[in-house]
Amino acid sequence: MGKKAVCLLSGGIDSCVSAFIAKQEGYELYALSFDYHQRHNKELNSAKKIALALNAEDHIIFDLDLEKFGKSSLTDFNLKPERDHKIKDIGKKIPSTYVPGRNTIFLSIGLAFAESIEADAIFIGVTSTDYSGYPDCRPEYIDAFQELTNIATKRTVDGKRISIVAPLLKLSKSEIIKRGLDLDAPLDKTWSCYYGREVACGRCDSCILRLNGFKDLGLTDPLEYEKK
Amino acid sequence: MGKKAVCLLSGGIDSCVSAFIAKQEGYELYALSFDYHQRHNKELNSAKKIALALNAEDHIIFDLDLEKFGKSSLTDFNLKPERDHKIKDIGKKIPSTYVPGRNTIFLSIGLAFAESIEADAIFIGVTSTDYSGYPDCRPEYIDAFQELTNIATKRTVDGKRISIVAPLLKLSKSEIIKRGLDLDAPLDKTWSCYYGREVACGRCDSCILRLNGFKDLGLTDPLEYEKK
Repeated sequence: MGKKAVCLLSGGIDSCVSAFIAKQEGYELYALSFDYHQRHNKELNSAKKIALALNAEDHIIFDLDLEKFGKSSLTDFNLKPERDHKIKDIGKKIPSTYVPGRNTIFLSIGLAFAESIEADAIFIGVTSTDYSGYPDCRPEYIDAFQELTNIATKRTVDGKRISIVAPLLKLSKSEIIKRGLDLDAPLDKTWSCYYGREVACGRCDSCILRLNGFKDLGLTDPLEYEKK
Repeated sequence: MGKKAVCLLSGGIDSCVSAFIAKQEGYELYALSFDYHQRHNKELNSAKKIALALNAEDHIIFDLDLEKFGKSSLTDFNLKPERDHKIKDIGKKIPSTYVPGRNTIFLSIGLAFAESIEADAIFIGVTSTDYSGYPDCRPEYIDAFQELTNIATKRTVDGKRISIVAPLLKLSKSEIIKRGLDLDAPLDKTWSCYYGREVACGRCDSCILRLNGFKDLGLTDPLEYEKK
């Protein structure tokens, strides 16, 4: 039997490239996305298209009502994601788009999925280089979740390993985009903008990081953006 | 402002006593239970009664479709929890009632709740003495989740602490019951049986551990049981 991986798919570039790396490494893919009552479902539509392009064995969209807790501009609609930051300022301070506990919840549900299908790995597209400064995207966070995983499940207690794989952890946004293009990942189907309007805003942290990544490579982002 | 605790409440004895310990320690209480599509909702009805008896500030019942993953006799209704084990055999082997990733998921959602209300602690009623042998109830598991918590959130990165408190970790079932009685915890409102019938079965691991705890104290469990 081949090796299996659960791939967390947000619909953005990073998780898309992370999953295509898992595919290249020969894993059978089980995609997992979350409807966490985020601002919009454009990214979930992107996740579905990416799962199809991956030829995943399964794609679970798991419902999680994080709106119950709020305290983030992605789950509390009275707040708005920051815009017009300078690229050099992004990641210096934890922004309003930080969602309490998000990656811990996503990885823990990934762990349940992984154990239930006897998977060997969970791929997550976090990066700590061109990123928003979220604490649960740092290398020490991934290490701590691996330590937890090693003792948390029947599967790991039985001597099997579930690896938490974050292949983009040390890559810059342009390196991630380059890697995605090399792997024929459908970057044109991804969605990064924190606002879920018809076209991307081009002004939120997520758009700025993405646009800058393409620019660093001398390329044009295939997505359409609002006119300035 | 007083100190706050998120208390995980399953509806069983252990989480009830754990929450009453938090109350005695002077925390403002925020109860959190999970509708994880378990076999029955009798335990959730018990959790509601316990939250009222605690005079909790809030009680969130969070929906989690763990039936999607199954692989446990609590979430896959084609399987049935073991019965008629000898007390000395319980905990030696991980039983069918083990739910992949359960406590990791519960604690991670507790972490989101704790961060959103600026809580200082999460109380969880796990015990590793008279228990079913689940890997995510052991002291080293709680330690690993604490390590993760210390770096996972904005709150902890900002220098505040969120303590993972498992006050029953080293207590036997009879010691837990004794503690509950001393604290006037409403043990008559708890529900432990894995089967959700009108009265408790008296034969599943959970009933056997509970009945034995009362017996060790020379007491009679206030719950009604099926006639043998």
